Amino acid sequence: MVVSAVGKVIVLQRRQRSLVRLFGHYLAPDVIKHMARSEQLPELGGDTRHVVVAFIDIVGFTKMSEKLADQDVVRVVNACFDAIGQSITKHQGYIDKYIGDAIMAVWNAPNTVENPEKAAVDAAHEIINLLDHIRQITDQQELDLRIALNAGPVLVGDIGGEHRRSFTVMGTTVNTASRIESVAKDKKVRLAISQSVADGLPKSYPLSEIWTGQLRGLSTDLSVYTLDVAEIYMESAPKDAERQSGQESSNLVEFPR
Amino acid sequence: MVVSAVGKVIVLQRRQRSLVRLFGHYLAPDVIKHMARSEQLPELGGDTRHVVVAFIDIVGFTKMSEKLADQDVVRVVNACFDAIGQSITKHQGYIDKYIGDAIMAVWNAPNTVENPEKAAVDAAHEIINLLDHIRQITDQQELDLRIALNAGPVLVGDIGGEHRRSFTVMGTTVNTASRIESVAKDKKVRLAISQSVADGLPKSYPLSEIWTGQLRGLSTDLSVYTLDVAEIYMESAPKDAERQSGQESSNLVEFPR
Repeated sequence: MVVSAVGKVIVLQRRQRSLVRLFGHYLAPDVIKHMARSEQLPELGGDTRHVVVAFIDIVGFTKMSEKLADQDVVRVVNACFDAIGQSITKHQGYIDKYIGDAIMAVWNAPNTVENPEKAAVDAAHEIINLLDHIRQITDQQELDLRIALNAGPVLVGDIGGEHRRSFTVMGTTVNTASRIESVAKDKKVRLAISQSVADGLPKSYPLSEIWTGQLRGLSTDLSVYTLDVAEIYMESAPKDAERQSGQESSNLVEFPR
Repeated sequence: MVVSAVGKVIVLQRRQRSLVRLFGHYLAPDVIKHMARSEQLPELGGDTRHVVVAFIDIVGFTKMSEKLADQDVVRVVNACFDAIGQSITKHQGYIDKYIGDAIMAVWNAPNTVENPEKAAVDAAHEIINLLDHIRQITDQQELDLRIALNAGPVLVGDIGGEHRRSFTVMGTTVNTASRIESVAKDKKVRLAISQSVADGLPKSYPLSEIWTGQLRGLSTDLSVYTLDVAEIYMESAPKDAERQSGQESSNLVEFPR
């Protein structure tokens, strides 16, 4: 009896650790630890917090999907998400969610990050440098990546109702990040960052303004920048020409949510 | 010793049940039960399955956000998501994720649903009938809802990498559902359903074609329908006029992902 009860305690303790570890793949570990201790759900609701939000798109995904069997599409997506996720995590970012072929990631929530702008740009730069590796492991030479970063206040917390909850961030800062991605697409750069992200970077980072205008949903003009390094440009087309047209507004910029 | 070990077993068993229950708010219960039993993550990857995908948008959210304190925004969003989520769950749907102020839901994955088209349309109709209730509990008279439904094959399974996983669905069927929402917006209806959803409904459902054209990302024309009941129309404007213009293509239809 004693032996069996003690043995069972050990088994159950191991199982609890295992469950917490397994669930940690789906939800922020801090949220899980809190639940395991308190045996309660976090309060629904949230706090306002300054974060950097990233949208990271796999470019050419739809085209690729048409050529591949379903199982291979998932294999390629997972290989991309795994490689990109490692860079995000290494640079202290949090993967908020996958939206189709895109990753939404956050810096400075739920964990504190000292300089979220620098951490996010460093991660983005590293991810873009992974492109050849990603093409190689997935055997998809036409894949490309596009990353948009925006900094600002968001609501952070548990969103949802009784039947489904998500720990996430929401607000204009998120929508704007998504719209900045359209600027990146328009300007054929792999990375586009907002003024607010640029302002948080060390002076040594080689920034180049690529666009100024009014994004849908914003009441003032916004400048969008990129890192002026060769691997950021999708085409080896003359960079100067692109930069010259950078001051014009674009009609292509649109985001539906 | 015996007592304390036996007591601990009871505590640990209760805690494990509690963890599984708490996690059920964040992840499909079937996936959790599988993990709790096997103490292993599900295989990454997926199967192809016929589902109905829904995008349910809170209309007027951005405008509302500007007027409210952050805490109130979260309170309103959560009240909406809770009320809508209850209808989805009642009609056998699964809440895949929250994307900003929108809900993405699925019928026939992970659980089998006998007639997913009917279940999804019934849920959508019920949700739209909840609008007055939602406006009342949130004290936001200007809130509105927009729902788009599409049926077709998707990839269902665990997506992601080592650092973050999601049980989700992906594929053209999902993107098309999102684009159909733009048709609903354009035509000022609260519900837009694709031909494939319409084909799966009982003959008694009063369908009305509102648009035919080529959505971005698709190579053939698609017809979009609505339920021809008063509460579906956002404006009490002449419905016939709207229906007459329903055959024209729209340039507004666009989805970025």
